[in-house]
Order: sequence, then C-alpha cells, then structure tokens
Amino acid sequence: MSLQENGPSIAIVGVTGAVGQEFLSVLSGRNFPYSSLKLLASKRSAGKTQLFENQQYTIQELNEECFDGVDIALFSAGGSISKKFGPIAVEKGTIVVDNSSAFRMVEGVPLVIPEVNPEAMEGIKVGSGRGGLIANPNCSTIICLMAATPLHRRAKVTRMVVSTYQAASGAGAAAMEELLQQTREVLEGQEPTCEIFNQQYAFNLFSHNAPIMSNGYNEEEMKLVKETRKIWNNMDVKVTATCIRVPVMRAHAESVNLQFENPLDENTAREILSKAPGLVIVDDRSANRFPTPLEVSNRDAVAVGRIRRDVSQEGDYGLDIFVCGDQIRKGAALNAVQIAEMLL
Amino acid sequence: MSLQENGPSIAIVGVTGAVGQEFLSVLSGRNFPYSSLKLLASKRSAGKTQLFENQQYTIQELNEECFDGVDIALFSAGGSISKKFGPIAVEKGTIVVDNSSAFRMVEGVPLVIPEVNPEAMEGIKVGSGRGGLIANPNCSTIICLMAATPLHRRAKVTRMVVSTYQAASGAGAAAMEELLQQTREVLEGQEPTCEIFNQQYAFNLFSHNAPIMSNGYNEEEMKLVKETRKIWNNMDVKVTATCIRVPVMRAHAESVNLQFENPLDENTAREILSKAPGLVIVDDRSANRFPTPLEVSNRDAVAVGRIRRDVSQEGDYGLDIFVCGDQIRKGAALNAVQIAEMLL
Repeated sequence: MSLQENGPSIAIVGVTGAVGQEFLSVLSGRNFPYSSLKLLASKRSAGKTQLFENQQYTIQELNEECFDGVDIALFSAGGSISKKFGPIAVEKGTIVVDNSSAFRMVEGVPLVIPEVNPEAMEGIKVGSGRGGLIANPNCSTIICLMAATPLHRRAKVTRMVVSTYQAASGAGAAAMEELLQQTREVLEGQEPTCEIFNQQYAFNLFSHNAPIMSNGYNEEEMKLVKETRKIWNNMDVKVTATCIRVPVMRAHAESVNLQFENPLDENTAREILSKAPGLVIVDDRSANRFPTPLEVSNRDAVAVGRIRRDVSQEGDYGLDIFVCGDQIRKGAALNAVQIAEMLL
Repeated sequence: MSLQENGPSIAIVGVTGAVGQEFLSVLSGRNFPYSSLKLLASKRSAGKTQLFENQQYTIQELNEECFDGVDIALFSAGGSISKKFGPIAVEKGTIVVDNSSAFRMVEGVPLVIPEVNPEAMEGIKVGSGRGGLIANPNCSTIICLMAATPLHRRAKVTRMVVSTYQAASGAGAAAMEELLQQTREVLEGQEPTCEIFNQQYAFNLFSHNAPIMSNGYNEEEMKLVKETRKIWNNMDVKVTATCIRVPVMRAHAESVNLQFENPLDENTAREILSKAPGLVIVDDRSANRFPTPLEVSNRDAVAVGRIRRDVSQEGDYGLDIFVCGDQIRKGAALNAVQIAEMLL
C-alpha cells in the first residue's frame, strides 16, 4: 500500500479473519494508494493491535460511526454484519465492496469479477460523492468463471456441470486449524476433535456444509448456479454443481464440463485461455502435471488444465477442464481489492 | 472361509498387496468354501509366512506350475503378471478372476459386477473341466455403476458426467503409507517425501497419475468410459470423466451427473436405489449427512446420496448423485470374491 494524501480512506471490516488478513496482504502487495486505514472487527478483537507496513494499528470495534469519512470499505465479516452495516456505510457515502453473500443476488447490486464483467460497476467511483455497494462473488463462482468466461465469450456456454474440491479456508481460519489438529490427532491414533464441522475432515471429504435447500442443492451449489447467470447477464445458461469439501488448506479445485452452442475445438480453447487475464495454463500431458491447489496457494492467478474435447459430446461442442484457484486470494480478497482499484 | 473337502481349490496371486490381503479378509468374512488355498507372490515375498484363519501358510513364488489343480485363481498383481500367467492358468483348467485391466476390454472376456451383469459370465462354472477368464472392472467403474445401473434400467442413461475423488489405496499399500508419511512431514514443517507420486499428496490433490492418452483423457478416465459401455452392453451411452486423487486412504467418492432418455423423478429414483442390492442410501438433508469415504471404509456396501433433480435439465430427465465405496473392497476384492461365488 502506498500512503498518499489524495488517496482514498479505507476501512477493513472483519480484519481478524482469514480474508481480512488477506485484504492487508493484497493491498500491501499491490501498492494500493490510501490516505488512511481503519481496521474494524467485533468487540472481541477491539483494542488488539495489528502491525501493517511498519505501523501499529489498533483494531476498533465496528459501529455506526466507523464509516464517517471512509471512501472504500472492504467487508468480510459474514452476511449478517454486511446486512446491518453495509447500508449504514453506503448512507454515509462509503463505497462498500462486500465479500459476503448478503447482497449478491439483490437486483441493482453489481456482482463483479473484474476480468469478467467490469462493465457491471460502471459509474461507481470514489469522489462522486455517492456511496455504493458492490458484491464480491462466491469463491467457487469466481474460480470457475475465470476459466469458463473466455470460452463462453467465444462459443456460448449452454450448460455447465461443476464438481468442486473445496478447501478448509472457505469455512474460515478456525476450520483450517481444525483440519490440522484433526490430522495430528488421527496420526496419533486419537479421536479427532470435530467442532467446526460435524464429522471427521482429516483424510476424509464430505458434502459442503452449507444448508441444503428445498430442491436438494446446498446453498454453495446454488450460488454457482445463480451467480453465473447474473455475472454473465444470461438467464439461459444451465448450471448444475456438486460442492464437496476436501482436506486441503486454502485453494479450491473444480472439475468443469462445458457444453457450447457453437463449435470450439480444443486447440482454439487453449489459445483463448492462454490469453485470458488472471489465468495460467498448467497442462503438461507428458509429465502428467496439471493444476493443483497447492501450486496455486498464495498465488494471484487461477490455473486451468486438463483441457480436452469432451468425448461424451458430438463434434466440438463440449470441453472438460480442471481449474484451481486460491480461495482466500482470487476467491475473495484479491477480487475485492481489484474491484476497489477500479473505483479510483 | 470354510474348509470343505468338496470345495474348490483356490489360489491368490499377489497376496502381499493391498487387494491381495483384502481377498483373504473377504474370503474369511464370507465363509467362502475351499478345499485348499495357495498364496502366491513375487520372488521377493516367497518364503514369507502368512497367518490365515489360525493356519500358517508359506507364500510361494508365482510360476507356471502353480496352477496345477487350482480351480479358481484370484489375480491382483498388476497387468503384466496377469497377461503372462492368466492364460497359463486358464490352459491348466483354472478359472481366473483378474483384478487388473489386462483383459477387461478383450472381446469374449466377461467384465462383471455381480449385482449388475451376472449374465455376462453365464456358463462359466467350477467343475466344468474348462478354464476361463473373468475380468473385475476398475474400482471407479464398479462404484459408479452400483448406483447408476438401477437408474439406467428404469430410465436409460444417455449421458453421464463423472468427477472422481480417489483414495490413495488405488495406487497400492505403498501409496497409502506415502500419504501418511508425507502428512507427518508436512505437519512437522519438513519437505514431503515424494516417491510413488511425483508431487505432494498431503493436503493436496492432483489429476490421477494414470498416463494421458492422445485424446487428453487419462487411462483411468477412459476405463470409466469404455467399461460402462461393455458392462451395460450398450455402445450408445455417452460418458465423460475427470479422475482426481484426493488425500483420503481407501475409499473413492464420485460426483455423477446423469441424463436420461425417459423421465425419472427424484422420489422414484430414491425408491429404486433403496431396493438396489449392495447399495445404501445416506441422504439426510436436514442433518447434512451424506456419503463419505471414511464411513464406507471397510464396508461392503456402496453409499449413495445427494440424490436430486438436476436443475440444469428440463423436467425429470436428469439427476445428480454422490457415491462412495471402499476401493479395496467393493472396488476390487469383494467384487472378485462375489464373482468367484457365482462360479460354484
């Protein structure tokens, strides 16, 4: 981050969480300009100090007055905090970039992946004197669409079947710690401690813990279904998803099967993906090296590989791909900071 | 196992491997009748002893004479051993149940899941005086088709999109040990030892290590594509698969998206699955409890859950399901022993 008198004043809501901490790391790494920085959290963390770029900050308790004079607030403190304090901040002229699901599907709230649909937030700028609200999509949606969108633009995706391999980080820092602790316990022959999740996570996997809706999908899956339509501004695209948590720390993987309206051969797809911003191709068939969660961890770029013509579809109307992305970074903090950069 | 004078004489080829050991456990548990038991392995293991049902056996080195007088040989020692010794055993009048991929796609060799296509091995019987060869399908295929077949029989599957979450055991006992060792090393901050696989497995996942074919699929994926057609005796069914290894010990999970020719609603599907042999439904939406690899480990039954109408398809022409099965047991040893039972 770079301190500049004419830079925006920034607030981070939920700074002590996994994404909150990543906000700091990403802002710093990208040399984001700012005139002041406010670190906000719940009462529990208020008064603690946070060292950031050689300066001590005292974490403040989030309240209605916090947003006075704040240009941009990055929220990642859960849906209920966003629902309560997001509108208050907007009222005070702050532009809120919200990482929760609270406002994503609200009509009129832009749901933005900067590489995909920057046009959705057109006209929202710091200095306009107006507050605003922009939603950060769900991590699985961001990672999937980083790879699917360039192909969609060329050949129009009609249907997408997604199966996810989701990391502990999606459930927060405590879930990551629980995975480590359980793994230690299992290796020592002890009963694993299950607090965040209701079952053993170490050396196991399970259906995503989001609540199941009346149609049998869990909320995580329906986010992929609905957010894709909104981000692509295309109500016709058919999406189904099965979301699974695997014992991996902080990056998600997704197996994505694509059906197209127009033909798109494998080589053209590879060429398109190689030019897509924020994406790297890892697709070495002879060495059997493809994207892995570990290799994208702490990286900005989403990795795509296993790019191949789908043998279950006629001609060049289908592709299978495998995508990995850092859930905390591009799946959350980086995407939000990129949105904030577009506000300047 | 029960020792019976008029029972068949049995040989196990590859007894020291993960599946070989499971053959013993399953034979014992199912009270399989036998008049004699020969334990065969490579030169390296020959001379070692194996305690089984209170009797000491000396492991013999596999050679051409081993099959004299053997009625049924269960092979699980890799494709090249099967290719060399399978035909020799058959020549001597032995019925070979082969767990390798060597003969699966050979015309005339039955590829059998007893609950699915027992008719394929009709006429092959111990006591007929003729040897024979029956192939055990690949573990991923068995586990997938245990759930997909009852639905296919009712509504005819036209296309299937499978993403797998495969355990260490599929790569053998040493891979399971490597996963444990790597996990210990990572927890202690050490560099993980990568011998079986060419990359870190602990807290990671990667595309299945089977070689990649010219169409971009790996061999494991194409097994699912081709074996499904052979087992269902249906060359029209379209299958695509993405096979991924996850840091789980001994049971595979699979996310399966199904398209049907005829309508099949979710409740009817659930009713059909509840009556299918060898299958249990684990589908508690309110408690968010669904099949997990851990819960099917060391179990015979394959578990199916997350049964829901696919929202990406019109009407009742699609379903999503999630399946888990013990890779060593139903995915290999149990299925082979069930085949052997049908030979009596």
